[in-house]
Amino acid sequence: MFIESADNKIIKQIVSLKDKKTRDETGLFIVEGEKQVNDIPLNWEVKYAVLTDKNAKINFSHVYYTTEKIFKKISDTATPQGILAVVKIPDYNLSEILSLQTGLFIIIDSLQDPGNLGTIIRTAHAYGVKGVFISKNSIDAFNGKVVRATMGSIFKVPIFRECDTKSLITEFKKNKIKTYALALETDKFVSDVKFEKKVAVIIGNESKGINADILKTADDVIKIKMFSEIDSLNAAVACSIAVYEISKQNNC
Amino acid sequence: MFIESADNKIIKQIVSLKDKKTRDETGLFIVEGEKQVNDIPLNWEVKYAVLTDKNAKINFSHVYYTTEKIFKKISDTATPQGILAVVKIPDYNLSEILSLQTGLFIIIDSLQDPGNLGTIIRTAHAYGVKGVFISKNSIDAFNGKVVRATMGSIFKVPIFRECDTKSLITEFKKNKIKTYALALETDKFVSDVKFEKKVAVIIGNESKGINADILKTADDVIKIKMFSEIDSLNAAVACSIAVYEISKQNNC
Repeated sequence: MFIESADNKIIKQIVSLKDKKTRDETGLFIVEGEKQVNDIPLNWEVKYAVLTDKNAKINFSHVYYTTEKIFKKISDTATPQGILAVVKIPDYNLSEILSLQTGLFIIIDSLQDPGNLGTIIRTAHAYGVKGVFISKNSIDAFNGKVVRATMGSIFKVPIFRECDTKSLITEFKKNKIKTYALALETDKFVSDVKFEKKVAVIIGNESKGINADILKTADDVIKIKMFSEIDSLNAAVACSIAVYEISKQNNC
Repeated sequence: MFIESADNKIIKQIVSLKDKKTRDETGLFIVEGEKQVNDIPLNWEVKYAVLTDKNAKINFSHVYYTTEKIFKKISDTATPQGILAVVKIPDYNLSEILSLQTGLFIIIDSLQDPGNLGTIIRTAHAYGVKGVFISKNSIDAFNGKVVRATMGSIFKVPIFRECDTKSLITEFKKNKIKTYALALETDKFVSDVKFEKKVAVIIGNESKGINADILKTADDVIKIKMFSEIDSLNAAVACSIAVYEISKQNNC
């Protein structure tokens, strides 16, 4: 089907999916760009795709074509590639993942920058992290910028959204997952800790770090060794270095 | 002085400084936001500042005030704080830095993303890196987004712009700085190398990595240990992990 008007309901739905509220209500998100669309796993549910190139071949059952002008309206990028798909946000089985015998997990609390979250999900994929748990007050993992920054890793790492960090830590404790808050309020370096086989790293807000209540609830607080004592690592970098160090110990 | 018109030559100059070409011609760049402006070192040359708050106290000799509407035009952010300064790009002494007896250096080749370069400069600051050398075909370090992403570290790390990476590596060799290209074309992990006291890490383009010619010129090629063999670390994360590992050996 060819869409000629920006008033078409498919176009309107895609525009509305830029808002988290609509993503929550519909359980759908947008995957944009040729590489990313090709990376969508076969067992994920693609509602439909929208293309500008009528000759492009694509394996989805519902495909709409439209003009470049209309595509510009729905695109989230400065130079649209003329291809996007609307995809169902996957459901992962929490108890299955928590009951794994070994594994590294990441808890994201109050993180705001989409590039940072995308980068962390990408690092999570690179190190075989078993799940990324994102708090209610963080940027949404299915925001367009986050999805693009993951470079396809959004399809590879189980994501749990809308978490309540404190209850989650309690749940982790029940499942013998030791939780480490990454913060400056400690003398303990990541590189000096002997980690268990089930470990979670908690990463907080870019400017405020992790709030005191969560710091207290976590099993331990660790920090990254730096040359100077000032806080000057980007949040995604700090989280990635912690994941790297823990993975090294576990011989990943 | 109060600026009432967007046609004022100060306003026009600030807008033009968003282009690298004008920054190169004038040797000036823009520092925006309260924290960043306060971070400008006292010995840096501030040409002038522009503010929207007439009651704000600021220690520069040339201060202009303007309306919020005009400030929005010159601001590079979505929610302007109403404060910016136009500052001279500093000159650092290359031969002095290369002749240091110990030190870690970063060479940036063809990196494109401003957030990545800003993050790397921030990491460089955290680990006491002696100089960041940026190739001609990379994003400019004095681009507004890069400056903001450094979170003040742009004022702390010597930056060398417009480098020719191959000639630079030759220069490094003369100064007994061993150059390590960070790339996938190797079996050698960063964590397995015994580093010298003068070390440079070369980081390449986000999607293409380091070009073959530069890979050949570098003294050695190293990579970051990952769980999976696919390339899935963000460029700034990979560079930061390398810097972290080398600094750890040198007991920073």
